[in-house]
Amino acid sequence: MSSYSVEGIPEYGKDLINRFMRFFRPRSVAVIGASREPGRVGYAVIKNLVDGGYKGKIYPINPRAAEILGLKCYPDIREVPDPEVDSALISIPAAMVPDVIPSLAEKKVPVAVVVSSGFAETGNPELQEKLVRMARQYGVRIIGPNTYGIYSPWYNLSLSFTIPYEHKGGLAVVAQSGGVGMASFGFARWKKAGISINVGLGNMSDIDHADLLWYFYADEHTKAISFHMESIKDGKKFIETAKIVSKKKPIVVLKAGRTGYGEKAAKSHTAALTASDEVINAAFKKAGVIRVYALDELFDVGRSLAMLPPPKGENVFIITMAGGLGVLLCDAAADNNLHLMEAPQDLVDEFKKFVPPFGAFGNPMDITGSCTPDMVQKGIKLALMHPKTDAIIIGHWHTVITPPMEFAKSVVEGVNEARANGMDKPVVVSMSGDIPETLQAIDYIETHAQVPAFFCQPERAVRVLGALYQWARYAGFLKK
Amino acid sequence: MSSYSVEGIPEYGKDLINRFMRFFRPRSVAVIGASREPGRVGYAVIKNLVDGGYKGKIYPINPRAAEILGLKCYPDIREVPDPEVDSALISIPAAMVPDVIPSLAEKKVPVAVVVSSGFAETGNPELQEKLVRMARQYGVRIIGPNTYGIYSPWYNLSLSFTIPYEHKGGLAVVAQSGGVGMASFGFARWKKAGISINVGLGNMSDIDHADLLWYFYADEHTKAISFHMESIKDGKKFIETAKIVSKKKPIVVLKAGRTGYGEKAAKSHTAALTASDEVINAAFKKAGVIRVYALDELFDVGRSLAMLPPPKGENVFIITMAGGLGVLLCDAAADNNLHLMEAPQDLVDEFKKFVPPFGAFGNPMDITGSCTPDMVQKGIKLALMHPKTDAIIIGHWHTVITPPMEFAKSVVEGVNEARANGMDKPVVVSMSGDIPETLQAIDYIETHAQVPAFFCQPERAVRVLGALYQWARYAGFLKK
Repeated sequence: MSSYSVEGIPEYGKDLINRFMRFFRPRSVAVIGASREPGRVGYAVIKNLVDGGYKGKIYPINPRAAEILGLKCYPDIREVPDPEVDSALISIPAAMVPDVIPSLAEKKVPVAVVVSSGFAETGNPELQEKLVRMARQYGVRIIGPNTYGIYSPWYNLSLSFTIPYEHKGGLAVVAQSGGVGMASFGFARWKKAGISINVGLGNMSDIDHADLLWYFYADEHTKAISFHMESIKDGKKFIETAKIVSKKKPIVVLKAGRTGYGEKAAKSHTAALTASDEVINAAFKKAGVIRVYALDELFDVGRSLAMLPPPKGENVFIITMAGGLGVLLCDAAADNNLHLMEAPQDLVDEFKKFVPPFGAFGNPMDITGSCTPDMVQKGIKLALMHPKTDAIIIGHWHTVITPPMEFAKSVVEGVNEARANGMDKPVVVSMSGDIPETLQAIDYIETHAQVPAFFCQPERAVRVLGALYQWARYAGFLKK
Repeated sequence: MSSYSVEGIPEYGKDLINRFMRFFRPRSVAVIGASREPGRVGYAVIKNLVDGGYKGKIYPINPRAAEILGLKCYPDIREVPDPEVDSALISIPAAMVPDVIPSLAEKKVPVAVVVSSGFAETGNPELQEKLVRMARQYGVRIIGPNTYGIYSPWYNLSLSFTIPYEHKGGLAVVAQSGGVGMASFGFARWKKAGISINVGLGNMSDIDHADLLWYFYADEHTKAISFHMESIKDGKKFIETAKIVSKKKPIVVLKAGRTGYGEKAAKSHTAALTASDEVINAAFKKAGVIRVYALDELFDVGRSLAMLPPPKGENVFIITMAGGLGVLLCDAAADNNLHLMEAPQDLVDEFKKFVPPFGAFGNPMDITGSCTPDMVQKGIKLALMHPKTDAIIIGHWHTVITPPMEFAKSVVEGVNEARANGMDKPVVVSMSGDIPETLQAIDYIETHAQVPAFFCQPERAVRVLGALYQWARYAGFLKK
């Protein structure tokens, strides 16, 4: 825990960090309500723990079983040999959940995730209040109830009844809805986005977004945070926490229920209290929170911010192989408050040495569709190595001379060579061309250069750079 | 040509329709500058014509070849046996292009596409002016120069040096940039979007978006139109034409160069004159044009409008399997000026018969993650068959009970049964879940029900319905 400064962190934040350091990196896990029957949640959880490659101790708790998937079963968590258990998942009938809290406390369980449903979401808020009361009384914190669970990929921990997640990475995802959580798994697998933590908040009876922020602040794996948020339990707490955390790591938020229709639906969904959208907007701004308005944008901005280094200045430079895509990239740059620098004369002179005369020698630098992979690579290196540029946008289109994979290799080599020379500036790529080769090239670029690349989405490529700048300005990374 | 009313069409519009009816559906095609050498544009064009399965006569024109790919070569188009040639592509050095125009006129070529570059885009506007002058004088219309060409999939006509296109369908795509054109091919293949016509306007020296609108108006294959537009040569002409055409078919426009940065880049790209964005916005509104702000949105909205029937009224109804996705769908509905009807009591009563009591019985109708494929299908049929609903949005998330393909089959059966009962209302689907099964399910729905479906993009699903309503309101399809 040496990776974070404790200065400015309130006591309850420190307590949360200590709890989550055990919960998300557990030496032992108890599953209250483990089952021998395939198809049951209590079975799927054990299976996911085993299949996910979790290395710690697994304690299935079930008074009517001796063994589940080869693991010794215990009738009660209090029978477990360890004096402390770091993580617990509860999957028993709702009415019984509050009553197991004292037994968790006895084993010093810091946080328990309750997947059971049958609380506020089914018209039983009293039972949920009882659960929270018991948890407070016994000093156990609760994620859920009515959630799909949590994933901690770096510790091979799938504490959930859905499929275990495989890509370790830098994005922390929090969903206040099962459907959105499932979307985050699918999207992340589709884009091979690396995840540091995935949490389903379910009914959010206790642990909320703000509480998790403290762990993400301290967690060395987490580089960026994507929040799906339907309600803010304690606005002041969230904003005060976000203010501190977003100085260190970008927080991206999709606030659902921001319109009249949406708010009405959110109320019937989680009985959530929602604040006026203007109030939320102003508060987010003050706290450096990056607001997005679409689910795929939440995931794309988050995964990109987890990949990109922060820029050091405002000078954005565009290289494009197609004039028309250059225009779209420019429009998006304006929409995202990016500063397209004037092309430095010495850089223009260098480009003029190898780009055909019908190119456009400004910003965007249109190196034309007639450029070879070598020319693309040369251009990228020139742009990245120039002392005045701070971030690079690259626009590609599929030509016979530079097909997608040739382009991808040029980008990877150019970016990595510049990095080896100390020029680690943010780069984003927009590609358009035939499939499957363009999709393969995008995968190659993202995997080998950690550069976010987008298929037929020039505006999205610029959007993620815009989000990075919004954060870098707030966090004070830009030179004055 | 009986499929369009000639009333209200100006003479030049009728002339264009007649020309394009020959050009896009040719009995014969001449390639001026055909080549025997693989790797040359003049070779690739012949090969694409042959590989694309074009059934008419192909006349390669090259004075120094006897045969290309087994086809007899002619030294000059005037030597071709036919008295008339319907289509021509020109791929010879730029300086020679104006001089072949008289020979095309002699064979009554209505439109020629000039792929040669070396005109205004390389600093030679005089040569381009000469080309246009000759074309006017001899009564030949020009697409290009400096374009990738055109595709007319329904007539197996690939008149281009890029890859032939395979999916026949209802979307006409026009790009004023090679990079954007290439994006349209890649995107359309990726989404298996059916194309009626694809045109690269290149330098747009003669034929422009407005001219093409007349053909799309008359073409029975074209259901919707997606325009990438950097400049409007004649604003009044475009708006007057769009006003008429968009009463019949939706026109979607991505106007590039709409910001200061973008406009500057557009000027260096095509030397285009651009109007102020406010003026363009107002004009588009008057003409029923649907404006979009991202390249993938241009293609998604276009391909969806080509699939969807127009709605008959404003009553939109949402069925969702996840409350959280329902909220996002509601926010998007508000953003897109959709009217979420009050759920009719008799419909609510029907849903209450099979949906668990913890569902939400309103609009959105949250049938919960515990619903089976049969329940999904029942819900879809109920919603579509209800006399008060006009359009349906369906939100899915991946559960063990209803995995993606089971959901997809339920949607297809539900929609097709309702259609068979005369209820052909627009339906859009948002899916989120694991890959590859969710992607396969989306493909299944789009292929078997012609219902646009989106992966982790609830906002995009609603956006395309919003665009459909914008058009339907303009075109007068909604009951008062």
